[in-house]
Amino acid sequence: MTTEATSGAGRHARGPHTVSTVADLRAQVQAWRGEGLRVALVPTMGALHEGHMSLIRRAKMLADRVVVSVFVNPTQFGPNEDFGRYPRQLEQDRFKIGMAGGHLVYAPTVEEMYPAGFATTISVSGVSSGLCGDARPGHFDGVATVVCKLLLQALPDVAIFGEKDWQQLAVIRRMATDLNVPVSIEGAPIVREMDGLAMSSRNAYLTDDERAVANHLYKTLKQIADDIDEGVDVGQACAWGMGELGRKGFAAVDYLEVRDAETLEPVDTVTRPARVLAAAFLGKTRLIDNVACGVKG
Amino acid sequence: MTTEATSGAGRHARGPHTVSTVADLRAQVQAWRGEGLRVALVPTMGALHEGHMSLIRRAKMLADRVVVSVFVNPTQFGPNEDFGRYPRQLEQDRFKIGMAGGHLVYAPTVEEMYPAGFATTISVSGVSSGLCGDARPGHFDGVATVVCKLLLQALPDVAIFGEKDWQQLAVIRRMATDLNVPVSIEGAPIVREMDGLAMSSRNAYLTDDERAVANHLYKTLKQIADDIDEGVDVGQACAWGMGELGRKGFAAVDYLEVRDAETLEPVDTVTRPARVLAAAFLGKTRLIDNVACGVKG
Repeated sequence: MTTEATSGAGRHARGPHTVSTVADLRAQVQAWRGEGLRVALVPTMGALHEGHMSLIRRAKMLADRVVVSVFVNPTQFGPNEDFGRYPRQLEQDRFKIGMAGGHLVYAPTVEEMYPAGFATTISVSGVSSGLCGDARPGHFDGVATVVCKLLLQALPDVAIFGEKDWQQLAVIRRMATDLNVPVSIEGAPIVREMDGLAMSSRNAYLTDDERAVANHLYKTLKQIADDIDEGVDVGQACAWGMGELGRKGFAAVDYLEVRDAETLEPVDTVTRPARVLAAAFLGKTRLIDNVACGVKG
Repeated sequence: MTTEATSGAGRHARGPHTVSTVADLRAQVQAWRGEGLRVALVPTMGALHEGHMSLIRRAKMLADRVVVSVFVNPTQFGPNEDFGRYPRQLEQDRFKIGMAGGHLVYAPTVEEMYPAGFATTISVSGVSSGLCGDARPGHFDGVATVVCKLLLQALPDVAIFGEKDWQQLAVIRRMATDLNVPVSIEGAPIVREMDGLAMSSRNAYLTDDERAVANHLYKTLKQIADDIDEGVDVGQACAWGMGELGRKGFAAVDYLEVRDAETLEPVDTVTRPARVLAAAFLGKTRLIDNVACGVKG
């Protein structure tokens, strides 16, 4: 592989150079780092939307070269979850990555990531308890393991993750710190649709009717955060939110909680930065979102 | 920290330069690698004997600079094991490391390795099942996690482990492969006393009477391997070995088994390289050993 397999002019039109093996990925990243260039990794599961674009743009502010991985990781899906129907659209993704200024796409196969005999699992206790950790058993083991692999495969200077998956970001930070992974972990703010709905690849599952009410997840969380910041009791605010989501058409609420922003421990009274987090179903589609609270107080 | 904190002449007499933080370790290793020098890591729990010396000498054949870590890792000891009385003798160890030609000693505190909030565990299934994995629940999680940390803290080109802990070596190889740890893992042959006893820091626990019969662990395993290579049935050979260890004074045998040398799966008939492995108690001291079989056949 050459250092720059495609010329700058042609790259964006056709999409950036794409590799599918650890060896090719490492060769390119090491070549860049050997030239003194700073490299960022943006791990994604593809089906890229404006939220991912914002991660790539943030990566470009932090580094000279941006690698975007596209891998729908089977080990973070439960047996009854949407691994099979999760959207896969690599050519569209490559085009979008090029438009956002990404320099390299890493799209490994499942066999490249988990060859025969694979037997290792990373578990993070504490921050992975409750919330999505309870609703999706094994999910964060799958996330921690695949992210550790991606970080050590690419060995970038920095990796960028979205704050929409707040608990995931907390698990990844903990894993990387605990295992001394030599990569800096950066969070990037949630990107929302005009009406407030957090951008998500899963929004594509929503029917028109579901899409019309989906933004009430954000609106409800924001109202809870504002209420708490104005002195309303945490339990009372959450109880109102549970009812509100039901009234707006959410079929089931996996959780709606206020947690410490960093340790993710449950909080009864907000005395330092906290996060209001929820996961709720519209039809068969599970949406998650979170907003800050206690930041001013 | 300077690149070479002590001069070559004085270093061996006083022991090599010693660091206790990840930051100092990384600064030194990165300085060396930046100069184009190849770096090896020899992870140890201290109480160094001739077996460790052979690992350091092997490391010197594979690299330009050798880092020896000395850390008695609490998470790989069970609640009723010998963590508290495990021998600690850093000054003697530093002297020995210097004599063997090691260039840097890394002796972190427990707090440096496991700061408050530490919450991550690496588990390896398959190769960690049975043998010491059954006798010492959680042991290989502790080993896999601390070794991953040491490898990512030091980021050497290569790390060397003794074949005496054959199952441990298999677990470490699996973990490093599965997580794409960018370090080459090398095994080094067992070093034995004149009478055949495998060198071990735990040999220091043996009374004179126990030491006099301890070599029968090796003799018995060697006899089993020879018998199997000459056509004796695996089950029959192991049954004889169990009896023999009892006759020679071993109080209890945790296991005595023949396993595939690589996958560690149990084997009934030896058709490819295998290993005869045992763990047995002399008094309160648990000794382990292993020998090759099926290598000729």
